[in-house]
Amino acid sequence: METTTKSMEEKNYNKSEFYIGLTLAISSSIFIGSSFIIKKLSLIRLARKGSLRAGAGGFGYLKDWLWWLGFLTMGIGEMANFAAYAFAPASLVTPLGALSVLVSAVLASKCLKETLNILGKLGCLLCMLGATIMVIHAPKEEQIESLDELVRKLRDSSFLNYVAITLTIVIVILIYVGPRYGNRHVTVYVTLCSAIGSLTVMACKGLGLAIKDSLSATSINSHPNPQLLFGLMVVVVVCICIQMNYLNKVLDIFSTSVVTPIYYVLFTTMVIIASAILFKEWEKMDNQDMLGGLCGFLVTVVAIFLLNAFKDSQFQPLLRQSSRDYGSNVYFS
Amino acid sequence: METTTKSMEEKNYNKSEFYIGLTLAISSSIFIGSSFIIKKLSLIRLARKGSLRAGAGGFGYLKDWLWWLGFLTMGIGEMANFAAYAFAPASLVTPLGALSVLVSAVLASKCLKETLNILGKLGCLLCMLGATIMVIHAPKEEQIESLDELVRKLRDSSFLNYVAITLTIVIVILIYVGPRYGNRHVTVYVTLCSAIGSLTVMACKGLGLAIKDSLSATSINSHPNPQLLFGLMVVVVVCICIQMNYLNKVLDIFSTSVVTPIYYVLFTTMVIIASAILFKEWEKMDNQDMLGGLCGFLVTVVAIFLLNAFKDSQFQPLLRQSSRDYGSNVYFS
Repeated sequence: METTTKSMEEKNYNKSEFYIGLTLAISSSIFIGSSFIIKKLSLIRLARKGSLRAGAGGFGYLKDWLWWLGFLTMGIGEMANFAAYAFAPASLVTPLGALSVLVSAVLASKCLKETLNILGKLGCLLCMLGATIMVIHAPKEEQIESLDELVRKLRDSSFLNYVAITLTIVIVILIYVGPRYGNRHVTVYVTLCSAIGSLTVMACKGLGLAIKDSLSATSINSHPNPQLLFGLMVVVVVCICIQMNYLNKVLDIFSTSVVTPIYYVLFTTMVIIASAILFKEWEKMDNQDMLGGLCGFLVTVVAIFLLNAFKDSQFQPLLRQSSRDYGSNVYFS
Repeated sequence: METTTKSMEEKNYNKSEFYIGLTLAISSSIFIGSSFIIKKLSLIRLARKGSLRAGAGGFGYLKDWLWWLGFLTMGIGEMANFAAYAFAPASLVTPLGALSVLVSAVLASKCLKETLNILGKLGCLLCMLGATIMVIHAPKEEQIESLDELVRKLRDSSFLNYVAITLTIVIVILIYVGPRYGNRHVTVYVTLCSAIGSLTVMACKGLGLAIKDSLSATSINSHPNPQLLFGLMVVVVVCICIQMNYLNKVLDIFSTSVVTPIYYVLFTTMVIIASAILFKEWEKMDNQDMLGGLCGFLVTVVAIFLLNAFKDSQFQPLLRQSSRDYGSNVYFS
């Protein structure tokens, strides 16, 4: 309700940036979600042809155009995701990643004939509802407009503290907790990946802003900083390598149904915390939007849980029965 | 964003009315939810003492103070619900009725030692999230301030059309559809109850406004209309009798787990439609609030479904297992 000092024109500009970011984030999820299915379709086709399977060390998939299509789709998705961070707040783009789980669940039931049970369907519905609620309550205005501002914020003591704490957690897990408990508790390496992941996202966001800044019309006023760009790029590459390595380790020990929901929750939470500290996206939000955003996030968490935890369960709800044959034809295999 | 002609003071008055209504609606749900459990506790105690059970025609419960406490709690809850309609929009009060399902589910697991499985717990969480989202997006201002205005709106052709259509549906179900399909399809009599229920709520709302109007300081300006009050009271009593009769019929044929979610959805939808036509609560709402409110409602519907449909199922999600013993200790009884 307050009258801000920003002009109406600038606000509209920010709003259109928000919608560009939103569109990029949603299409990124569609591409990434589809890429899993395309790759799996290719691997199934190859297995039918009798090629040595990828799990057994075969590389036959490299000759299949369908596999490369999946790879390309994934690449486009990741690029759209990266671009989305340049336009919309990180605390919106990261949670919307949930939509890729939805897309791959729906496509798996359509293309791979994997059954989507009633809880999976409810998960899909909740996923869309949660995403919609998060979009409604997301901060609509970008807090950082130029590279100079970014550099200033990166040097802010609260953000440096966040980085220090995150790195301490990472080192403690790598040296002490990981070797002892990593094989028994799924949260150990998932926490590591999420902590590193939050730094990746912040670096991506910075890189995206820097690229956007150097391309935009206002670039005359800003001073391109090659050291900063290079530094951010190194952070992104190193972080992604560590993340991929430990994510593969976790997925090797635990099932995807276990890892996906926990990773989603921890990763998104840490990105939101990092984003709140660095970009102070939440500063201009009112309590109502914070509460609404939190509710949307929790709805999405429940959705991811429903989509994953009961994936291979087949059962009917009691709803189809009358009280007279209550409990007779319920099955679960 | 538009500047309304209403003064700031009046707005604050409306807002405090909204919060009174909200508090009444929430406490109503707590009372109604608890009353079920208190009554059941009493019936269990009586059964242990060896009294003739209520289901077998016994009236021993009438001598039990605990049963009367349950009855009193229910009465207070219904009165709070009625009062809530006088202060807050019907399209907020009715959906919040979902909280009574949550309260009785939680209390049943605490006091009656009924197990609340993982889906039930998720249902509880979603129920609270859905309710919070609906409250955030509910229309905050009352559209009708005086009895005169109410009379004018009741004579509005669009509302008269709604009443005519509703009564036609009711008569068709009573004469034709009910006797043929009522015992096979749960929706038949639930539709009847919901249609009648929407009229009950509108009449309650009118009665509440009328009583509030005659008690408030501004009553000097309004003309008390005994005919209108009497008419509304007759509508309320007749509608509640029809509703109770057919709801008992439905509950006798189908299980509560079937009836509760369907009744919640149909009843709330019809109240929202009736309320939109009569009080035009949605007129001042922006698209964002409408979308948000709809999302909150759908989240609550999923919650009610989860709380009811899988009530008597015991199973573990796959989440607790690693991929190595995938599918081994899942059970469902």
